[in-house]
Amino acid sequence: MSNNVVIVGSVAYDDVETPHGARKDLLGGSATYFSISASRFANARLVGVVGNDFADADRSLLTTHNVDISGMVTDTSGDSFRWGGRYHDNMNDRTTLYTHLNVFERFQPAIPDSYRNEQFVFLGNIDPALQLDVLEQMDGPQFVALDTMNFWIEGPRRTYLDQVLKRVDGLIVNDEEARLLTDGRSILSLGRRLQDLGPRTVIVKRGEHGALLFHGDDIFFVPGYPVEQVIDPTGAGDTFAGGFMGYVARCGDLTLDTMKGAMLCGSIMASFCVEGFGLERLSKLSVTEIKNRCARFEALTRCPSLTL
Amino acid sequence: MSNNVVIVGSVAYDDVETPHGARKDLLGGSATYFSISASRFANARLVGVVGNDFADADRSLLTTHNVDISGMVTDTSGDSFRWGGRYHDNMNDRTTLYTHLNVFERFQPAIPDSYRNEQFVFLGNIDPALQLDVLEQMDGPQFVALDTMNFWIEGPRRTYLDQVLKRVDGLIVNDEEARLLTDGRSILSLGRRLQDLGPRTVIVKRGEHGALLFHGDDIFFVPGYPVEQVIDPTGAGDTFAGGFMGYVARCGDLTLDTMKGAMLCGSIMASFCVEGFGLERLSKLSVTEIKNRCARFEALTRCPSLTL
Repeated sequence: MSNNVVIVGSVAYDDVETPHGARKDLLGGSATYFSISASRFANARLVGVVGNDFADADRSLLTTHNVDISGMVTDTSGDSFRWGGRYHDNMNDRTTLYTHLNVFERFQPAIPDSYRNEQFVFLGNIDPALQLDVLEQMDGPQFVALDTMNFWIEGPRRTYLDQVLKRVDGLIVNDEEARLLTDGRSILSLGRRLQDLGPRTVIVKRGEHGALLFHGDDIFFVPGYPVEQVIDPTGAGDTFAGGFMGYVARCGDLTLDTMKGAMLCGSIMASFCVEGFGLERLSKLSVTEIKNRCARFEALTRCPSLTL
Repeated sequence: MSNNVVIVGSVAYDDVETPHGARKDLLGGSATYFSISASRFANARLVGVVGNDFADADRSLLTTHNVDISGMVTDTSGDSFRWGGRYHDNMNDRTTLYTHLNVFERFQPAIPDSYRNEQFVFLGNIDPALQLDVLEQMDGPQFVALDTMNFWIEGPRRTYLDQVLKRVDGLIVNDEEARLLTDGRSILSLGRRLQDLGPRTVIVKRGEHGALLFHGDDIFFVPGYPVEQVIDPTGAGDTFAGGFMGYVARCGDLTLDTMKGAMLCGSIMASFCVEGFGLERLSKLSVTEIKNRCARFEALTRCPSLTL
């Protein structure tokens, strides 16, 4: 694996409650889930900030997955980002119990010199003004995709978001965010209107129902892999993005076949993610498990030729 | 096409309002949508009742699609079943404006002698006691599937529904009906519990998100075909069932490949159905249009082998 993917986002500690139990101080954050997922396909290079509570064991977990954390700075003035959430019975609705930004509130991404020439970049869900600033620090990457959320779409920072959308190649959002960004009754018109905002490649994630890709004039659909038990959905979206970008970086091109394969990798990795609390399933995954699930996925979805 | 499929269900006139307009006196009902859809793959033989308001033109529409209506009786004591509904902006929520059962309230399905030896039967959404009665009138068909609804699942007729479920081979329901019939957190456990109620073959329809098949120990997933514009969703579920059963009857066996192809036919036919009011799109469909959409569907969903 010679290709790298840069991820700029949050590193956090999460307290999570689901119908299957509760866990405290789980290593989380968008950049963490993204990196661990992407690292199965390419080398992930993380840009983020942690506080003085960040555990050596968690640093080791990242580095043993070949995640380059030279861009992860330690701000000793406070604790790491901490988030607490509770999932309800259907696993789709969740209540945020608290959000303590801590050192993440003052996060100013500084791209290390050794990252500036990277070709594949993911701008995690942070202030769009910071996403713009990261773009300025990079030396003309081949493919930059971004994530965002309702807070930036509906709030006063929208003007920065519109600017950064004009400059990126890809957008990876969920159904709800897509509909906040623009309108469109059918999923097809929604996708095209998102492309009109700037990115040539748009992915609309639909949770357990899979995800849709709009890549230039092409469209591709990947179903969600049906899992036996959803234990904890935290990080599934970032894990999808990590699998997607990791596979694109691995292939090193932007062909439709690469994008299709990347959609499958994203869906498969997300399906593993939800099968355990935090990173417990994702971080212990073998290549054989990934390959087997890809093969199973094909059996689940490939239709024989019809007799018409 | 030598194979036939028998459908027992409603024939109705619908008044429909959607964000795209309003139409009155549309030919509708579960047996109608089912028949027109199934008739693309096999000969449909309809069992139902209409009133003295039933138009000759609508009789002709059915017979020109090779739907055998010798089992559709005319009850001159009243009007046909009439339903009025309004769809809201998202096209998923609808308000029933009225339901006039009229002659359908006294419907007692009588299977014509010429239908009794048929091998493929669909029991549309009617009183489960009547579904049981239809089974008694058939001479050991190869594959019987049924549809039902919340009214029968939650009401006092549930005991009849449980009896008929034990005797049928297939169940075709939507997500919500599936969750009313049994529980199961994941879609996989839901499917298995539905199979425990009796049918070896279970299909859970998920609207625009497609449908899942449980066939013995096998599972298969078909996404919803993304349409440009949903004009009127009325009848999409019955159209899915018609495409599914029509293709099974055409193949004449219950192999997994037949079931997979049937899922695709159901999904494709439902996608055409919603593109027009009532039957306007479905009833004017060419074989070429169906084949083209199947090919397009494959391009939308077939993933190349991964480079892992």
